This record gives sequence, C-alpha cells and structure tokens, in this order.
Amino acid sequence: MPETIFTHFETIKFEGHGSSKPLSYQFYDANKVVLGKPLKEHLRFAVAYWHSLAMTGSDPFGGPTIARPWFAAGDPIAQAKVKADAAFELFRVLDLPFFCWHDADIAPPGNTLADTLKNFHIMVDYLEEKMQGYDTKLLWGTANLFSHPRFMAGASTNPDPQVFAWSAATVKNCMDATKRLGGSNYVLWGGREGYETLLNTDMKKELEQMGRFLSLVVDYKHKIGFEGQILIEPKPKEPTVHQYDFDAATVYGFLKRFGLENEVKVNLEANHATLAGHTFEHEIATAGSLGILGSLDINRGDALLGWDTDQFPNDLWTMTMSMYHVIRAGGLGKGGCNFDAKVRRQSFTAEDMVHAHVGGVDLCARAFLTAAAIIEDGTYDALLEERYSGWKSGEASSMLAGKYSLDQIEKMALENAIDPQPRSGKQEQLENLLMRSIYSAKL
Amino acid sequence: MPETIFTHFETIKFEGHGSSKPLSYQFYDANKVVLGKPLKEHLRFAVAYWHSLAMTGSDPFGGPTIARPWFAAGDPIAQAKVKADAAFELFRVLDLPFFCWHDADIAPPGNTLADTLKNFHIMVDYLEEKMQGYDTKLLWGTANLFSHPRFMAGASTNPDPQVFAWSAATVKNCMDATKRLGGSNYVLWGGREGYETLLNTDMKKELEQMGRFLSLVVDYKHKIGFEGQILIEPKPKEPTVHQYDFDAATVYGFLKRFGLENEVKVNLEANHATLAGHTFEHEIATAGSLGILGSLDINRGDALLGWDTDQFPNDLWTMTMSMYHVIRAGGLGKGGCNFDAKVRRQSFTAEDMVHAHVGGVDLCARAFLTAAAIIEDGTYDALLEERYSGWKSGEASSMLAGKYSLDQIEKMALENAIDPQPRSGKQEQLENLLMRSIYSAKL
Amino acid sequence: MPETIFTHFETIKFEGHGSSKPLSYQFYDANKVVLGKPLKEHLRFAVAYWHSLAMTGSDPFGGPTIARPWFAAGDPIAQAKVKADAAFELFRVLDLPFFCWHDADIAPPGNTLADTLKNFHIMVDYLEEKMQGYDTKLLWGTANLFSHPRFMAGASTNPDPQVFAWSAATVKNCMDATKRLGGSNYVLWGGREGYETLLNTDMKKELEQMGRFLSLVVDYKHKIGFEGQILIEPKPKEPTVHQYDFDAATVYGFLKRFGLENEVKVNLEANHATLAGHTFEHEIATAGSLGILGSLDINRGDALLGWDTDQFPNDLWTMTMSMYHVIRAGGLGKGGCNFDAKVRRQSFTAEDMVHAHVGGVDLCARAFLTAAAIIEDGTYDALLEERYSGWKSGEASSMLAGKYSLDQIEKMALENAIDPQPRSGKQEQLENLLMRSIYSAKL
Amino acid sequence: MPETIFTHFETIKFEGHGSSKPLSYQFYDANKVVLGKPLKEHLRFAVAYWHSLAMTGSDPFGGPTIARPWFAAGDPIAQAKVKADAAFELFRVLDLPFFCWHDADIAPPGNTLADTLKNFHIMVDYLEEKMQGYDTKLLWGTANLFSHPRFMAGASTNPDPQVFAWSAATVKNCMDATKRLGGSNYVLWGGREGYETLLNTDMKKELEQMGRFLSLVVDYKHKIGFEGQILIEPKPKEPTVHQYDFDAATVYGFLKRFGLENEVKVNLEANHATLAGHTFEHEIATAGSLGILGSLDINRGDALLGWDTDQFPNDLWTMTMSMYHVIRAGGLGKGGCNFDAKVRRQSFTAEDMVHAHVGGVDLCARAFLTAAAIIEDGTYDALLEERYSGWKSGEASSMLAGKYSLDQIEKMALENAIDPQPRSGKQEQLENLLMRSIYSAKL
Repeated sequence: MPETIFTHFETIKFEGHGSSKPLSYQFYDANKVVLGKPLKEHLRFAVAYWHSLAMTGSDPFGGPTIARPWFAAGDPIAQAKVKADAAFELFRVLDLPFFCWHDADIAPPGNTLADTLKNFHIMVDYLEEKMQGYDTKLLWGTANLFSHPRFMAGASTNPDPQVFAWSAATVKNCMDATKRLGGSNYVLWGGREGYETLLNTDMKKELEQMGRFLSLVVDYKHKIGFEGQILIEPKPKEPTVHQYDFDAATVYGFLKRFGLENEVKVNLEANHATLAGHTFEHEIATAGSLGILGSLDINRGDALLGWDTDQFPNDLWTMTMSMYHVIRAGGLGKGGCNFDAKVRRQSFTAEDMVHAHVGGVDLCARAFLTAAAIIEDGTYDALLEERYSGWKSGEASSMLAGKYSLDQIEKMALENAIDPQPRSGKQEQLENLLMRSIYSAKL
Repeated sequence: MPETIFTHFETIKFEGHGSSKPLSYQFYDANKVVLGKPLKEHLRFAVAYWHSLAMTGSDPFGGPTIARPWFAAGDPIAQAKVKADAAFELFRVLDLPFFCWHDADIAPPGNTLADTLKNFHIMVDYLEEKMQGYDTKLLWGTANLFSHPRFMAGASTNPDPQVFAWSAATVKNCMDATKRLGGSNYVLWGGREGYETLLNTDMKKELEQMGRFLSLVVDYKHKIGFEGQILIEPKPKEPTVHQYDFDAATVYGFLKRFGLENEVKVNLEANHATLAGHTFEHEIATAGSLGILGSLDINRGDALLGWDTDQFPNDLWTMTMSMYHVIRAGGLGKGGCNFDAKVRRQSFTAEDMVHAHVGGVDLCARAFLTAAAIIEDGTYDALLEERYSGWKSGEASSMLAGKYSLDQIEKMALENAIDPQPRSGKQEQLENLLMRSIYSAKL
Repeated sequence: MPETIFTHFETIKFEGHGSSKPLSYQFYDANKVVLGKPLKEHLRFAVAYWHSLAMTGSDPFGGPTIARPWFAAGDPIAQAKVKADAAFELFRVLDLPFFCWHDADIAPPGNTLADTLKNFHIMVDYLEEKMQGYDTKLLWGTANLFSHPRFMAGASTNPDPQVFAWSAATVKNCMDATKRLGGSNYVLWGGREGYETLLNTDMKKELEQMGRFLSLVVDYKHKIGFEGQILIEPKPKEPTVHQYDFDAATVYGFLKRFGLENEVKVNLEANHATLAGHTFEHEIATAGSLGILGSLDINRGDALLGWDTDQFPNDLWTMTMSMYHVIRAGGLGKGGCNFDAKVRRQSFTAEDMVHAHVGGVDLCARAFLTAAAIIEDGTYDALLEERYSGWKSGEASSMLAGKYSLDQIEKMALENAIDPQPRSGKQEQLENLLMRSIYSAKL
Repeated sequence: MPETIFTHFETIKFEGHGSSKPLSYQFYDANKVVLGKPLKEHLRFAVAYWHSLAMTGSDPFGGPTIARPWFAAGDPIAQAKVKADAAFELFRVLDLPFFCWHDADIAPPGNTLADTLKNFHIMVDYLEEKMQGYDTKLLWGTANLFSHPRFMAGASTNPDPQVFAWSAATVKNCMDATKRLGGSNYVLWGGREGYETLLNTDMKKELEQMGRFLSLVVDYKHKIGFEGQILIEPKPKEPTVHQYDFDAATVYGFLKRFGLENEVKVNLEANHATLAGHTFEHEIATAGSLGILGSLDINRGDALLGWDTDQFPNDLWTMTMSMYHVIRAGGLGKGGCNFDAKVRRQSFTAEDMVHAHVGGVDLCARAFLTAAAIIEDGTYDALLEERYSGWKSGEASSMLAGKYSLDQIEKMALENAIDPQPRSGKQEQLENLLMRSIYSAKL
C-alpha cells in the first residue's frame, strides 16, 4: 500500500471524557448502545471526498494554499488514484463508517462526454477495489453539475437542452455507480438550478424542466432496482442569486407538485439552513413533520457572514437540539451525518484535516448522547406535552378533526362564553433546563 | 357631514408628468386605457385602514407621536365613527377605488366575545352606510388575530383550543361582513401563527391546526356563497421568530398538503418578500408560475434593516419589474394594490398622510405604464424567449414531455456526441435595456 | 415592608453544579476567589430597572401581556413606589450587588420640565431610602432621551435646540442623582441620536451637536466631582435607521475627534454588537485594545432576526470568549455586567422573571470561571503567543518601532532574499481545544 | 498596433437621451459644463484593470468561463503585453479618462521578490509607452497583498514579519510606479488585514503593525515627493471574517489614533458600504463630514446576498443621492469614479464588457447631472436648511459653541419653561420631491 499524507496518523480511538490527547474521541464511543442501538448506527458518519480530498484553499480573493501530492502535474488517472489512496487512509484514521463523493471528486474530466464517463468508471472500479481493503462504505454518491462552464446557466434548468441531456447522462452513470458501490442514498444538490437574474429567466419553464428531471431520476431508480433513498439538498442562494430548492418547505411543495413526495426526501445542511433564515433544528423539525427527513450534512456557517462558510461545527446547543429533532423524527434511517465541512484556508496541513474531523465527530456524538438523555429523562417532553394538553378534550379534538363548521364553532363559543386565559410560554425556564442538560450533561 | 382632518384637502387630480404641484398625480391617470382596460381596473388601489387611520406612531423605544381626534377619550363607538368619517374623507381625497380593514381597525373590542362581535357589527353597519355616500369599495376584509394578549401564542395554532375557537368565531363574522360589504377578497395573515421558540413548540401539531382552520374557512366561503377570493399573506418572521407562512413557495406546499391549492391564493407584500430573502418580483413570479397570485400589499422595506418598516414605495426599478410579472401572470383579477404602508413616526400630520399616498400611487402607476410599454414594445420578451429557443426542437420537447428515460437520453447524448457551447447570459445588456425603459420611459 | 410580587421567593443560593433545583445557582458562587478576588467583584452583576420592572410585553404587533400592580391606575408617585418596593425585593431574591435605571423607569413624567424633575427627585429620595434596607448598590444611572415624542428627532442631535436644552437639563439631574446614590458609572445610550432618513439630515451638524453635548457632560462630571466613569453605549441601528454611536471603533473615532478618549469609555451590549455585524467578544477585544472598555450589557440577539431581541444569554461559547477578553483587557473595573435583557412576551409571570435572571447569572459565572481557567492553564495563550514570536527578533521589532523606512525595508528584503513560508493558522485545533475547555470544564 | 478583442468596437459616443443605439452614451456628455466644469472633470471615470482584464469568471463553485487570449499558455511577459494592448483598446472604446491597477494585474509574479519586482518594472515601462499612444491616464495604483498564499494571514498585520517586509517592498515599488506614471492617488485596500478567527489573533498587536505600515507609506510619499493622495479603502468583511478597515468611521478613528487624519483619505466602494450595513451615500456623507472623502469605487451589491457581488450599478436613486453628497463634500478632487465592477460569470464576451461599462457610465452621469440640478434648483436644500433654522438664534448658537455649562442650560430651560413642540420630519414629502427630481429629471 502506497504511503500517503495520512498514513502516519494512528487510528483515532475513543478515550473518554477526561482524555487530554487532542487526537482522541472523548464522546464518540462508536459501539456504545443508546436508544437501542450503537452510536455509530445512529449517526452513520461520513467523510466528504470534495472538501477533504479535493479542496485547494482558493477563495474569490486568492489562490490555492493547500498543496497535496495529487494536485501536482501528472497523469490524471494516476493522480486520481493517489488521491483515492489518501482518502481511504483518512477514512481509516478517523475510523468512520462512510464516505460520499461527486463524480468530479473521484475522477478527472475527459474531453468528451464519452471520455468523461470512461474516466469515471475507471475510478469507480478503483474505489470498489479500495473498499475491499477498508471498512468504509458509501453513504451517497452525487453528480457535480455546477463546476464546469457548461453548467454556468444550470443543469436540468439550463436554457440549452443539450445541457439537460448531458446532466441526465451523468446522473444516470452516477446512480449506476452508487448502486454498484452499495451506496445507501443518491443525492441531488441543485448547484446552479436557480437564477443569476430574474431578468433573463423563465422561472415557470425552468421549474418544469427540473420537475421532469427529478421524475426521470425516480423512474430510473426503480428501473435499476436501486434500494437507496433519493435525496434533494436544499439551499437558498449561492452560487446563484436564487436557488429553486430554497429550503425544506419549498422542496416539499415542489415534490407535491410533481407527485414525488413519497419518493424523495431531503438532505439537510446546517449552513444552508442558516442562509435560508432558519436554524438547523428548524429545518430538521420541518422535514420531520412533513415526513421527508432523509440525511444530514454537518457543518456550520458564520452567523455574521452571508456566504456558505462550511466550517466544522462547534455549537453544542444547536447540534444537540438538531439531534433531538432527528430522534423525534424517527432517526436518520438510511441517511447519515456527512461532514460537508472544510478546513479554513490557513489550515493546510494534513494534521489540520484530522483535527477538524475529530472535533466535529465528538461534538455530534456528545450532542446525540445528550439529546438521547433528554428524551430518556422525559422532563422536557412532559413540559412540552402539557402545553398542548387542552387539545385532548373531546370537544377540542372534534374541532381539530373537522367535525364542526366555522359557524358551529362560533355558536359554541358564544354559548360557552369562552374567555381564554393567558399561560406562560416558559421560554426561559425551558432554556435553563436545556442549558443544564446540554452544558453539564453527565455522559 | 362632520368636518374631519382630511376634509379641507382637495381631491387629488391627475395633472400629468410636468405638473409642479406636489399634491397631484403625474402618472396615475385613472381612466387611461392601457392593455385594453383603464389603469384603475388594473391596479385597483386600496387604502389600508390600520396604517392610515389607526396607527399611533409608537415603536419599541417610544410612545405615540400621532394624535388623531378619534384617539382621544370618549365613547368607543362614537370615536370609531369619527375615525370612519375621516377614513372616507381620506379615500375621497386620494380618489382611490378601494379600502381594506381588520375588524380591530374599525370597531372597538368588547369585554366578551359577544360584545366584541356586537361592536363589530355596529361598525359594519356604519361602514355600509358611509359607502353609499362615497365611491370607495371594499377590496378585502381580515381579522386581527394577533394584537390582543389572548393571541400571544397564536390564533389557529394556539396550544389552547379556546383561542382556536375564538379565532374561528371572529373569522366567521369577518367573512360575513366582507360579503355583506361587497368585498372582493378575504385575507388571512398569520400574525402569530409560528413560534417564538421551537423549544416550546409542537410544530407538527400546530401545522395540522392551521390546516384545519383554513379548511373551515374555505368550507364556510362556499356555504355562504362568498364569491371573492380567499388569500393567505406570507411573511417569514416578525412578530414571531418563525412564521409558518414563510413565503409564496412555502404557502404553496401548505395548500397542496391540505388539498386547497385551487381554493386559496396569496396576497404578497413587498417588505415580507425582502424579509424572506426574496425580491418582490420574485415572489410575484413564483406565485404566478404556481397559479396562486391573488393580490398585492404595496410598501417597501429597508434593505439594511431587519424588520418590517412598511414604508411607502420609492424604488421604480423593483416596482416596474413587479408590475411586469403581474401582467405576465395575467393581472390581479379580483385582487388589487393595497397600501400596506405607514408614514414614518415623525410624519404625524394629515398632510404627511396624503403626500405619502400620492407618491406611492404615482410610483405604482408609472411602474405599471412602463411595464405595459415594455411588453407592448416586445424587444425584451423576444430576447428572453430566444434564450430558450433550443427547447422548441422536437427532440428537446419530447425529452421535456417525458418521452425518453434517463438511459435513453444518455444513449442519444453519446451517439450525438453532444458538446454544449456557452452562450452569454447578457445580464448587463438586459439591465441597460431596462434602465433605459424604466428611467427614461416616455409615458 | 409591603408585600410585592417577588416577596414570596426565597433568596437564590449557590448550590453547586449538581443541584437539581431550578431556582439555584450552580456556578455563581459569589464569594469564590478566582484570579485574586471574589467572583462577585469581577462580574458586578446588575439588574436593569427598565426590562425587569417597567416592561409591559407590548411589541409592534400587539399590546401589553405583562400586568404588574404598579401598571394599574393610581397616583403616579405612589405607583412608582410600589414598583420600587418590588424592585428591591427582586434584587434581594437574586442576591445581586447592583442595579441600573433610567430616570423614566423610576419616576413618572410631569407636565413640565420642572414637574418632571420634581417627580424624579422624589423618587431618588425614595430609592436612597430603600437602598439603606438592602445590599444592592447603583452600578449606573442614565437618562431616557428617546421615548417621549419630544425626542422623536433625537436629543442632543435634534434640529430643535430646545430639545438639546431639555436633554441637557435632564442629564444634569440624572448625573446629580447618580452621584448622590453612589453610582459607579453614568451611561449615555444614543437612543435616537442618528437619523430616520439621510434625506432630512445634516449629519455634520448633528455630530457637532453630539460632540458638544458630550463635552458638557464631561465638564459637569469634573465640576461636581463625580468619580464614576462616563460611558457611551454603542448601537448601530434601531430605533433609528442609523445610530451615530455605531460600534466601539466608531465611538473611539468620535471621542478622538472631540478629544475625549481619556474621559469616556464604552458600555458594550451583546445584541448591539451582533446588529453591527460583530461578535460580542470582538467588541470587547476592540475596546480593550483601544483602552476604552468600560462595562457590559449582558443579553443576546437572535442571529436570524434583524432587531434587538434582548434575550437572556444562553450561548456558553460566546460568553466564555467574551469573559476571556474582559480578563485580558484588565477586567471591568468600575463597570459590571448589567442584565439588559427582557423576558419574552409570553413569559409574563414573576416566576419567569426570576428564572430568566438565574439562567443568565449562572451562564456568565460559568463563562468567567472557564475563561479564568483557560488563562491559568496557559496552553491556549502560549499557542497564541507562539504565532507572533517572529516579531521578537531585533530586526522585526526595530521595523515595528519605525527605525527603518519603506525603502530601507525593501533593501533588506532583497539582500536577505526573503521568502516567507506558510504556517498553519490552526483554527480547528484551537476550536477543539476551546470546545473541550468550555463545554467540559471542571469548575 | 496588434489586433485585440476590443479593436473592432467603435469608440462609444454621446448621442443623447433619445438614442436607440445600445452602445452609445445617452447622458455622459463628457465636455458638458455643469457646476462650472466639464462633466468628465467631475466624475474622472476609470476602468479597473483587474475586473475588466484579469477576471476569469471563476467562483467558489466553478471554474473559469471567460477565455481571453492572454490567459492562454505562453511567455508570461509577452502575455501581459497582449493584455495591456487589449486594456488600452478597451479604454479607447469607452473613451474614459483614467484606469487603475494592482501590480499583480499588470505583471506576472516571479519566483523571488527580486524577479517579481523586475517583471513589474518591465510592465510599468510598457504601460508608460502605451500611455503615450492613448489619452487614458492613471487614477491610482495599488498593490495586491492578498492573493498569493504568503498573504493568507494578512500583509502588514501578518504574524510573520517577513510578510510585512515583503509587503513594504512591494508597496514601495508600486508607489514609485504610480508616481512615474503620473497617478493621482495611491490606494491601500486591506485585503486580508483582519482576522479569520479571533481565536488565533492578537488584535492589538496587529493594529499596531498596520499603523506602522501606514506611517511608513506616508513618510515615503513625502520622501519621493508624490503629490497624489494616499487612500484607504474600507471594507467590513470578506475575504476575512473581520477586516480592520470596517467603514469610513472606523478608518477615521484609526487615522486619528496614528495622527494621520490629514495625510490619508478614503476610497469608498458602494458594495463595501452595504456589506457594512450602510448605504453608499451614508459613507460618502460620513467621509465628507469628517474631511476624508478621497475617491469612489463604483459598483453595487445585491441587498439580499451577503457577499461582494461587485455588479455594475443600476440604482438611479442611490447613485443620485451619492453624487449629491459628493458635490456637498466639495467634489472628488484628485479622486474619481473607478468601476470596481465585474461582469457576471455568464457574460463572458467582449461585447458584454463594453455594454456593462456603457450602462454604468451613463447611470453615474445621469445621477451627477440630476444631483447638480437638485442643488441648482435649491428647493430641497432650502427644506433641509429650514429644519435646523432654530439653531441660528443667538442663544442656541452660543449653547453649541460651548458658552454655557450643563447646569447653566438647565437653569435657562427652567426659567424659560421650555416645551419643545413636535415638527414633522416630512420624509415622504422629501421622497416625493426627490422621486420627481430623480426619475423625471429634464437633463
């Protein structure tokens, strides 16, 4: 096995809360059973090939800062294999059960569609081979339909039908590869499915194109017998000025419009939620309440910046509440927690990459354990349930069930001379209760 | 007829583009025929009772600055009539065809539900009488289900079913009154239908309550034979931290979920659009493309402030593009343009109120005339249509119609060796074209 | 002593980390010595009269929800005394060493300036008397120069010089009272010192008015021998569209312009920082580096809302980093930690008020203890210092001291053929280190 | 003269308001005399080398879309000359009097500092030669101290003194070149002078480094007898999380701190203003009132996006108010209007580049002409002046001049029993007046 930049790192181990070793897990005890199954089966952590292997550190104001052996000149396929070798070593170091890719992360483009697909399948073969030597499995695959200039005006929503066709061919191959590699999900993030300016956009037409595309994907899933989930990843803006898959509620409306709400779920990302004006837990609770929670992209944004910073998470409060709503929604099922997070531009060493993941894994693990403890304790849920207890009465539940009309309700209200009394929302009490649970949990 | 604070103002007249008279319309030539009907029938302007008659100028950091005779101590019903007298004089001065109200704007509350409804109907009688002496009609009625403390945790989404019942009784009466006064629409703005904190909220339950409530409203509309439109007014946040009717796309999903997408449309407000991260024209185009465009609330926000400033509009570009998308969507139908805008806190004189409306009316009129001219000219639309012309080919339109599967498209793409070529999006050219059209239109 | 709404609450006690009693301090052990003095002397907590005693729960979309005995009809002075009685009982319950007031919080307005000042001094007498029966002292006084309509266009920056004069007279009396009650600081928050629209504003003139006003205040401080600090509280916007005291850096420039940088410091508020696009810790570090850190207003905003929510704090990360920078800046001196935070509109009970403060006090205490522990441990500071160690060389320090000119530095750079090498910024490593310190501190 | 991508474009001509030719100036009549001198001398338009010649169209989610001959492989110096040839042809086509550059725009980097400076001077020679054949002069030069990885942690504020030295050497050479090419100004934009995270930052130390650097620049200006202005360009964030030169007010405080307020002015950019939470006109008025208005970077941001979109301007209202405040501040002097604006990623043709500038030039010209007309008309200014007229009284002006102390003012206020009366702020009236002036100006 070739030496890679991650080879010399020992595999990160769970060493418990008191460990002073920076490269250890203090909370991620993978096999610890909580709520009936091991932590690793709840969280299903994944490493993202793009941020962790393919990112160069460039930003709109400066060039690459991250030099990796596989970025050097050389045969593209050979270099893609060097990258894959390093990738699997990183997975080994972190000891996480899954990874995720775009086609463009794992294979170099060719000059034609045919060549591009050829390169892709060479590398899928190589990944398949690598997977036999490691324990890491595929959480999901996806197609990069936004980086190449041909996608500058969108993929399925492009004014040029040839781009739609190119995108269709690409997704077909990515779905084939995802199935072959045993992937649990196939994800569509609408990179440039939106508009730069409404001035040059026929929104109605573009939304119909996007609906058709998704229907084709769902049909193909059934045709090939892929048993994973199809997921849409909402994002409100960036790179485009408006992205059609704005947030979970918008995606739900889109799915309903095209009759796909039982076929497709969402892959929710923390930073995408905040860019849309929502908390991460809000998006999770929304998807949960609509029955479309699929999977999570773990990261964080900067509340004071207006772009997708994709940082590794460090907010214990938000992550705990997010995990609480995941559990309430019935868990992640075939989904998982993918680190769609990147090290900062100045963090260019291999060591930085390992540190970043260790911190993120541990934060999520602690958050999940705390959320489970809150649920097992029951105090919080009881307070919440009590708030709505008035709806349990026969009359109230009949009203909710639609057994009375508006004028009948009026009549009853007048007859009963109702005079609803204020009750405290107890927000600060609940916040205090949760501060104690979250910041001082005994795990 | 009693003297009011607006009585001494002459009725505002159209005096043309060159007029130097501040209190004149330079563009709003009500009877000018454009796109086949008079301007006033396209725009259907309305004065909002709440901002124009009921607002006191208080803000979170200071008390009332606007003293009106009807705010003084006195018999509540008598004072409500003084207010109504002034209202109709304001309508007369502005010479606009419609007005809008909440129940709480026109009538004082009673100590009980029965008394409150009684006061309301006394004032509805009075309005009906006033309407016989003036040309102003009712664009829409609505219920204020957010100001009284009983609604502090929501109306239909309240944890207390008695508040749901109170709200139902109120809306029933407001719908009755709207029908009786010949209203064209009935509006529901979800004032506190949302949450202050997710911590004390069962979102799933609350959304089901809200769906039931809307179904009751639609049923009652049919029961009483009200022929107007039922409209939901989206807003993303404020007063609550999250409002369930976030934006047009979210409302569409909600309507689809409860099977009401053919029964209910949206009343879109400019400042609500920007608070949701959208332009006003985006929201209009979205509703238009989904078939749910109902009516408009005209105002503007401050792009640098995070709350609903509800200012009178002064951005000609945005308003012109908004009117363009209204026309593209087939016009406002039974809807109209309601000035949901308030004078600033320091603008406490009756004169300020008149100036504010004159500026707003004229901006909208000019915007509509320009939008119509752009459409009649056809240059812009031709450029837009050309961009999508590739989709007219037989193969492309078949692909869009779903005649090919994903793998068939791949096969064709490879056989044809497609290589889509970049085409300029021409954003700056379109912006220049529209700058010339908008800022230099000959009207 | 009259019965008040807080009388039946026991005084909150420190009961340690493991306590399950909601109304106890788990971390605020007031007399615990850390970094050389008791915790209470570091933090100098204060209760804010306005939010805790005077707030009604109204918001721009609804009326009061909080009914207190002293809001009922009655003799204004008598009711102000009922309020004061309750205030001191709240201070007793919370066992905090300080409180803060505006003139308008403690005394009712009169019909004239003379009457208003008369009422004020009656109540100052009453407070003086109350303070003899309780341990709570005055952290600071301030004047409310923004709520009354006369201030709608500003106080010192008003276009009307009579408002300037009224404001001057008011501040003079508030300073007198602050001195008399033994206050440690006098604060100026520029409520409406700014503009609603630049269109009607002569900014240059208004800034000169504001500079003159502050100079008068400083002169008067010396005249009466007040030994406390004069503090400006920055805020970027709200209620005005632009507030002149935008942030700490802006205030510094203003002080320098008028030669007051050694006379006046800043009172920094968390939510004001975030509205200005900064973190709280940024504002503290900025003021610290400029030598103008005076005092803190403790609260939090909602990162997704654009207005001043003034919530009680619950973000342990931010508060810990804020306390870290307070310690680094040399501590708060005569300043303190004032809870400029309000319970939510639905939290209308006296119990909610107590809970809210208990949570806030404990969060700040834990944050301070953790920050002190980080400093005592030294690991983090050593990493930070190491990053700049290159500047310790003789040549580098000479360069910084200004001993070389631009062309001399060029010459040296060329002669030495410098080729600076990248070093990791280690952001993720530092975040992990601090996550462990903050979330898992052993206190 | 070699053929370039702009050679075939005719020089854009002023053809007046009614022209239907897209590539013509409708308002920019360069030699038209207004307020005493030709329009071109007021506006002093400049083309930005970086956006117009060096931009590739890449963004964080995709690669280059703009292919230019000089981006192709080849000898770097030869390609830099091809770029320069095209640049001057673009200047000729647009017929604008100035251009601006960074060192990195005009010359390729070398492997060492010495080689980099050598390349730079080769290209400065070449520009000097080109300038003899064209009418375009240099508005300002600047150094790119942010794109190369060596600047990833800042330039003058870098933890590594070698980077400070490299930056000093670079600026020295850029100042030399600016002087030699007859530049009117030298600009410093603090690209990465700020922090990515406060966690690894000693802000106090970094600000001292930055102060030293600026002092060196000012000293060197005097040493070489450069008669242009030294300008700092404020920006609040991006690429860093916090930039030290946040806005005009912050820069003023920084200059005062280091005693440089009479040596350095600001170059204000529209999009930087909005990212800081200000309007462009606010920043101009602020700098004007502080005496530090230097020059303008013309562009616009998207109010709904949180990053620097650097679009060509199209908002007539904002631009007119900006020009109004420029005139009020005494004009731009040695400064000018530099198009720091870039075509959209899909606008990759040479024609798009020309269109974009034509639209921007015309908008600014129209805005300036309208602002001048507003000032010459005098109605607006008279309304503004009237608002402050109370301050002209002897007593009020004495109060402002500091002739009375706080207690003396109190005494007078009580003796006079002042009772300030509300006056309308007339915001809507002023907006209407300006809407008519701006949107319907007869120019």
